[in-house]
Amino acid sequence: MTKLILDLDTGVDDALAIAYALGSPEVELIGITGTYGNVLLEQGVRNALAITELLGHPEVKVYKGIPHSEATDGFEVLEISKFIHGNNGIGDVDIPDSAREAETEPAVDFIIDAVKTYGKDLVYVPTGPMTNIAAAIRKAPEIKDKIGKIVLMGGALTVCGNVNCCVEANISQDPDAADYLFRSGAPATMVGLDVTLQTLLTYKETQQWRDLNTKAGDFLADMTDFYIKAYETTSPHLGGCGLHDPLAVGVAVDPTLVTTLPINLQVDVEGPTRGRTIGDNTRLNDPVKTMQAAVGVDVPRFLNEFMTRITGLARNAG
Amino acid sequence: MTKLILDLDTGVDDALAIAYALGSPEVELIGITGTYGNVLLEQGVRNALAITELLGHPEVKVYKGIPHSEATDGFEVLEISKFIHGNNGIGDVDIPDSAREAETEPAVDFIIDAVKTYGKDLVYVPTGPMTNIAAAIRKAPEIKDKIGKIVLMGGALTVCGNVNCCVEANISQDPDAADYLFRSGAPATMVGLDVTLQTLLTYKETQQWRDLNTKAGDFLADMTDFYIKAYETTSPHLGGCGLHDPLAVGVAVDPTLVTTLPINLQVDVEGPTRGRTIGDNTRLNDPVKTMQAAVGVDVPRFLNEFMTRITGLARNAG
Repeated sequence: MTKLILDLDTGVDDALAIAYALGSPEVELIGITGTYGNVLLEQGVRNALAITELLGHPEVKVYKGIPHSEATDGFEVLEISKFIHGNNGIGDVDIPDSAREAETEPAVDFIIDAVKTYGKDLVYVPTGPMTNIAAAIRKAPEIKDKIGKIVLMGGALTVCGNVNCCVEANISQDPDAADYLFRSGAPATMVGLDVTLQTLLTYKETQQWRDLNTKAGDFLADMTDFYIKAYETTSPHLGGCGLHDPLAVGVAVDPTLVTTLPINLQVDVEGPTRGRTIGDNTRLNDPVKTMQAAVGVDVPRFLNEFMTRITGLARNAG
Repeated sequence: MTKLILDLDTGVDDALAIAYALGSPEVELIGITGTYGNVLLEQGVRNALAITELLGHPEVKVYKGIPHSEATDGFEVLEISKFIHGNNGIGDVDIPDSAREAETEPAVDFIIDAVKTYGKDLVYVPTGPMTNIAAAIRKAPEIKDKIGKIVLMGGALTVCGNVNCCVEANISQDPDAADYLFRSGAPATMVGLDVTLQTLLTYKETQQWRDLNTKAGDFLADMTDFYIKAYETTSPHLGGCGLHDPLAVGVAVDPTLVTTLPINLQVDVEGPTRGRTIGDNTRLNDPVKTMQAAVGVDVPRFLNEFMTRITGLARNAG
């Protein structure tokens, strides 16, 4: 069975990504590694522990990652992130703390060990900055050839960014780490705004979770409604919220949900476009393409999988 | 039979585009409309007349287009354009002037009339700025629904630009016209740097033209060698020159040479990325996609078509 690691800055759509993974019988979620972005590292780790507990999966271990990019001295949550994800990252919905704590093994070491243990059976899904996976590859370069694949949520290839015209939020947090990953040769699929802004959720779907009359269903509905409401302000033209992180998990479970372009990508690390994801012209004619960029998505099929898996989980979790 | 109009700023690869079109029995080149870019309008028109004559097709009419963008008061050829295409636009190779002159009908009117006459049988291939076609659509908006299609050389969607990191040269000359075209709803295929930097020519191929021992073969070889030599300085990593404009003609003749992404494109017209071609996020979820962006190309097949058609023409032209 495919082993899955989620690398999360557990905000709202990260929480939905956890639910999607736990609702997918094809994969085993062997751990969550924490990163920063939508929230501080500590808050994201707290959320991941609490959410796995609430969703009936206290066996999922959570590991602390690196709290900020190498290029910075620290990290502060942006106001826009608080507006979209709430001050606590999960739509300001109160859920109980888990009695568990994060593992003592650092996330980077856990990632390296997991690749050594599971090899090609391991799929790693980062949905925040690429800081942890870049550090893992720097520390143990051999893992890039041993890992099954990396399916990342981040970037924007054929559409505009959401931080500015060129730059997507996850990549913006640590462009250097993303560029390192993209040039490393590791087999990676980029699930960017090109496709995640096509997969939208509305109040109609969250009502189905509320109608379950379970704690898990109420949590998912309340949290996601906060997120949909924020989207009504930030992206009124969409008519829903983008299912960014869950789509990356969806693609990790079933790659046929998207159509991809084989491409050697880079991240601009200098100048006004710092953080932009784009093809590397110097490797344009290299017949080996190490990455795949998702450029199309089967929206109805993904939404159906998304609702089936998460609703089933929230029903059974109680 | 498909009727073809080429809209050229007749530089080196524009000249090769003329040769490709004249060497293609599937299409009839019914006219060349002149634009500015690689050269001034007047020089490009002179070149188009001289080249069609040299290649044995004095029946091809040439029309003068608009000499500069609406946003500017005039146009001057950039030093980099002179370096790549020569001072005369055709690699500083001397060929006789044609005895013919440009038609008196303006290019914009010729385009409109041709759409009205040929409708869906007409394919329009602009390989410079989009100034003429944008003006034609502004003057007679109905042509955008009546034309067969537009296959343009320009832009860069999944790779970096060649003017700067974001911007390709043809689009840079008149971003407003390109944006107008892209948003007009006209059926257009963008053949950009994504694919044209994959289709490369070397001295090995130009030697085949020289070996023909014809005037046409010598001209094509000498002109293209100048261009290849410039590429050795500007893009040494490529190992050849990009067949930008001929690929657009190739796609006009046989769309199966490229794989395309259906997309609603825009051109950034404001800010530091002015001239960038990118998906319009506000039309991302519109089920109707008016444009196709070429993102993959069958390089061996195109190069074979390119050499077969142009070599055959240069042999017979004498």
